[in-house]
Order: sequence, then structure tokens, then C-alpha cells
Amino acid sequence: MLVNPSTLRTFTQNIFLAIGCSAEHSVLAADVLLRSDLRGIDSHGVARLSGYVRLWEKKRINPNPNIQIVHETPTTATVDGDAGLGLVVAPFAMQVAIKKAELYGSGWVSVRNSNHFGIAGYHALMAVEKDMIGFAMTNASPLVAPTFSNERLLGTNPMCYAFPAGQYPPVVVDLATSAAANGKLEIAQRSGKQVPEGWIQDKEGNYTTDPHALKSGGSLLPLGSDRDHGSHKGFGLSATVDILSAVLSGANYGPWVPPFVAFLDPPADPVGQGIGHFLGAMRVDGFRPVDEFKSHLDNWINRFKSSTTVDPSQKVIIPGEPEREAEIDRAANGIPLVDAVVADLNVLAERFSLSPLTH
Amino acid sequence: MLVNPSTLRTFTQNIFLAIGCSAEHSVLAADVLLRSDLRGIDSHGVARLSGYVRLWEKKRINPNPNIQIVHETPTTATVDGDAGLGLVVAPFAMQVAIKKAELYGSGWVSVRNSNHFGIAGYHALMAVEKDMIGFAMTNASPLVAPTFSNERLLGTNPMCYAFPAGQYPPVVVDLATSAAANGKLEIAQRSGKQVPEGWIQDKEGNYTTDPHALKSGGSLLPLGSDRDHGSHKGFGLSATVDILSAVLSGANYGPWVPPFVAFLDPPADPVGQGIGHFLGAMRVDGFRPVDEFKSHLDNWINRFKSSTTVDPSQKVIIPGEPEREAEIDRAANGIPLVDAVVADLNVLAERFSLSPLTH
Repeated sequence: MLVNPSTLRTFTQNIFLAIGCSAEHSVLAADVLLRSDLRGIDSHGVARLSGYVRLWEKKRINPNPNIQIVHETPTTATVDGDAGLGLVVAPFAMQVAIKKAELYGSGWVSVRNSNHFGIAGYHALMAVEKDMIGFAMTNASPLVAPTFSNERLLGTNPMCYAFPAGQYPPVVVDLATSAAANGKLEIAQRSGKQVPEGWIQDKEGNYTTDPHALKSGGSLLPLGSDRDHGSHKGFGLSATVDILSAVLSGANYGPWVPPFVAFLDPPADPVGQGIGHFLGAMRVDGFRPVDEFKSHLDNWINRFKSSTTVDPSQKVIIPGEPEREAEIDRAANGIPLVDAVVADLNVLAERFSLSPLTH
Repeated sequence: MLVNPSTLRTFTQNIFLAIGCSAEHSVLAADVLLRSDLRGIDSHGVARLSGYVRLWEKKRINPNPNIQIVHETPTTATVDGDAGLGLVVAPFAMQVAIKKAELYGSGWVSVRNSNHFGIAGYHALMAVEKDMIGFAMTNASPLVAPTFSNERLLGTNPMCYAFPAGQYPPVVVDLATSAAANGKLEIAQRSGKQVPEGWIQDKEGNYTTDPHALKSGGSLLPLGSDRDHGSHKGFGLSATVDILSAVLSGANYGPWVPPFVAFLDPPADPVGQGIGHFLGAMRVDGFRPVDEFKSHLDNWINRFKSSTTVDPSQKVIIPGEPEREAEIDRAANGIPLVDAVVADLNVLAERFSLSPLTH
């Protein structure tokens, strides 16, 4: 089903209003989810809306959070999200980072007591709009085993770096630090297809191509897949995200991160509050004039786009380019939703006595 | 040959003095190289000394640089290394970052017109000694092809993040953003062994296990090795390092980065000056009290170290742990140098009329 973006936006806002979010927060949270669907990252958009609602039902999401700065210097801060939606906590924190950058050149905010923040790219791009470089990271439910381990100790812990270009759209590097994002695994699970070796291991630590192995005690593998191909690097990057997001802010880290799915309870022995994020902004003109930077970044993009390739029909893809193309296409032509997601959304509509989704 | 660290240190200082470096710079440059050998990263220590000398002979390294800040805000700066040794330019830049962090909570420095800076960990650990989190990145000679390309457009562009712990040594995440570091390839080349599939491709873009393929137009692959296993993520991380280090500072980027080896000339059409680095420091107490952070990082380390593993005899390795163990061992027992490196160093000794290396 192809849905009009503004229809889907209003629908999503109404669900957030129905669980008690303020008008301002409902608009913002819906904007973060819609941006994900527009950018083609279907796993992080409205497909997750019912998941947020279930966390609210379990009283694990506070619809009216008192989000505040609890510690700061001129360019650093710790924000407590008061168990609010990460979809509103992270933009609050990024605004703090941007304000500090406006005054002092850069701003860095570690966040505790939050929840899933949607796509990292949304937050990093807030900085890019101000001609700043944006950084966004978050820890997440433990699904990934460190190199040599057979325990799920880390989330897919994404890192995002976003840079403003001139004639080209921004360069947005946004990646899960696991070999495969959980969303890709879910697609394989739904379609019943095998996954490539190197994405997951079973409970005993054997490689498997069965996408359901995760449900029976298996784990995702870090970027690099195995030691010979650098899985210790993926583990190190994931550890970096975990430490900056949670050890630094006072959130839960490692295996203590509360699961996104509401049917799993959070660990009984938390080491912090909620999940953690790390957001940053640096003014480009803190280093060189913005025009110079943008013209060199355009030159960088040009050079990489015009590279010769192994298969001449497959050009080099600039990070962020596919998402940008999806955004233009879907804004004009609508957002495709699979039947399961439409059904899921319409169960929510019924529960809150709202009109169902239409084309 | 097992060499006494202080003997090797003095020897290395004398070589830097002989090419015209000041006493202060010679001590510092030797300290960076020795730290690499002590930490077991043999590829980045004194094995590279003759490489630096050859660049000096070609007048590509200035032994008496006027290293200076050319642009700044309270927490950001661009440093021009005046074609000096990266081994002294990067510590200068990190000191600038640390001073800014002392005053404002964080400090970020992009560097142009520099040369190879040794191990990233050395610079990041300067911040850790001040109870700060250290960041260090650099771009490097183009050897890596982006996903889908068969051109060498990026260096092995390392990222390093270092965090102070309490009862444990610092966590030091220090990784080349390629599937395999060039040093590992050199070891395979010397020993004549094949390398795992997924490290390199030949000129046409076919996977190969021949470690010499790089010499005949092949390229290293990004971390992730292929698209299915996330090579676009390794490419994105490498791009991030390149942009922060060079597009931001005014250094050369991508395929324009001057090669480390002196027998290859730098590109005739530079887009900037020298190579670029990016250094950063953030005060831990800009976010939460240092003791709290360290005790939680200790708890993090404890949990990961005590994880069950696939092979019970192979425990999870905390990033930075093997280097720390090597450092203790080699400081006490000496630094092992292979014959080729000793011979190389003694050619330098003869050239500058210095005493050869002894045990």
C-alpha cells in the first residue's frame, strides 16, 4: 500500500497524542519516524510505532517527560530524558549541542534515561542544517556478541557522521556497527530466506545462515564478522558507542540495556537509567570558511562518484545518497507500506478510536 | 635481536637530531616511535625510521617546522604542520585540543600539511592522562578501494578512541578502517604466505589471496570486505576520517594524499597541503564525576572480560589490552627487532656516522 506522507504523518501524530504526548512532542516524534520512512529506512519508521505504544503500556515510556540538562560545561552536557521517547529526547539534546557550538565552536551531549531514538541520521542532519558537522550515536538492546564470545552483550550500536556539501546533498555516514543491521535480519526472517554466512552465530558460536537462530540464543556478529576480517574492529566501534552513550551519561550499558521489545522485561539489576545516546555538533567555520569546505567536499564527492568500478554499471555510492534519492521519490510518490505494517497501524487506530489508514 | 628500549630510544633520537630536528622534537618523535614498538605495533615503530629519513632526503619532511594554529574558536582549531614530522605535529595539535578542553570542556583540532603521525593511540592517550576521552584519526596514502570500485582512493585511515578506566588500564579502540591493516599484508608478503579472502582485490576487482596483488594495481578492501558483509560501512568510516582530517583542515584527501614511500612522488595536482589528522579531547567531568565514570567503565570491562566464549580458552579481549600487556613485557625484557629492521637501522647509523645498534 502506497501511503501519502502527510496522511501518514497526521496518523502518526494522532497516535502520539493518544498516548498523552504534548502536541509539540507528537509533531516532533512523528517527524522523526516519517523521515525514516521517507529515507527508505523502513525498519525504523512507522513500522516501530506499535512497539513504542507497547512500551508506553508497560509504563516504560513517559509521554510527558521533563527532559533536562543535569551536568554541563560550556561545550559538554549530560541530559536526562526522564524516560521519554528517544524521538524527542535526542532532538532536545542535539539542540543543546548546536547552541553550545554556536557559542564555542562545538557541543557534545551524552544522554541517559532515554528510549529508542529512531534513525541516527535525523539528529545528525539537524547540525548540518546549521553548517555544522553532526555526530549521533546510541546504544541499543543487546543482540551482538563481541569477538570470541557467544553472549549478546552489545546492541547494533549505530554511529552517524553527517557533513554539509555544496552542490551535492549532505554526506551522511550512518551505520550499525554489526555486520548486518537487525532490520535486514527481520526481512530475511519474514521471507524465510537464508542469510549470508558471517552475519549471525548460533548459541554455541557456530556460524549459521538461519535467520531465526537469534531467537534460539544466537547472536549477531560485529562488523568484520570474524577475527581474520576485523570483527574486533566492529566490536571496538560498538564499545565506543556504548561508552560514549551510556558509561559517560549514566545510562545502562552492555547487557543491561533494556530491550526495545515490550514483552522482554528490562534487567532486574540496572547499572544506570534507560538507554543512552551521544550527540555532537561542530561548526565547519570553526576550522575553515564554510564555502571552502563545501567546495572541497563537492570535489571529494565528484572524484568518488566518477571512480572506475569493477562492474561499470554499478557506480560508487556516496554515503547518504540512496536515502536522499528515496526521500525525493517517496515525498512525491508516497511511502510504500507492507500489509503487516498497515494492519499493525490499524490495530492502533482501532484501539485509540482513530480513523484507519487510507491511501 | 632483543634491544634495550633505552638504547633504541637514544639511537632513534640521534637519527632525528642528525636530520636536523631540534632536541625537543627528536625526543618527542623518538618517544612516539618507541611507544609503538613497546606496544607491539611493530609496523609503526622504528621499522619506519628509514622511511621518514627518505622523505626528509626528498625534502618532503621539514625537520624544523613552524607548527601553528591558523584558525580557531574557543574549542576548535586548524593547525598547519609546516610539512613537519607527524610525530611532532600531532602531539602539538593534541596539546591544543587538551588546553581547549581544560577551559571549555572539549577541544577539536584538524591538521593540514603534516606527515605520517605514527600510532593513533599515542595521541589519544595524551588526553587520557588528563582524565579526558581522546580521539585521534589520520588519513594516509591511498591503498583502499571504496565498495564497488577498483581504484585506490582511500588510506587505511585509522580511528582511535581512548577512555580512562579505574583499576584497569585505559580502553583504547584503535583500528584501521580497512579489513586488514597494511602492516599485516607486509608480514604476509615477507613470509610468502597467502592472505585470507576478503582482504584484497586485484586490479580487475577479483578477490585474491596473493599478498603481492597490491603491487600490481590491486587494492585493499574496506572493513566488511564485501557489500553483503558491510564493506560500505568500512568505506563510510574511512570517508569520515578523510573528511575530518583533510577536507576540514585543507590537507590532501582521497587519491591526492601523498604516499608515505619516498620513491613515489606526490600527485602533481594537490588539492591541499600534506596529509591531515583530526585530534580531539573531552573532559570526562564535563559529563559526570570522573570517579563515577571510571567505576562504571571498570564494571563494563569486568562484564566483558568474564563473558562466556565459544572456545573457553580464548577469552574476550578488551580493546587496548594486548598492547598494554606488550608494553609491560617489552619495557622489562626488551624490544624484539627482526634482522631486516636492524640492518635498515644500521644503514642509517653508518650514513650519519653514529654507532650501530647493539643488544
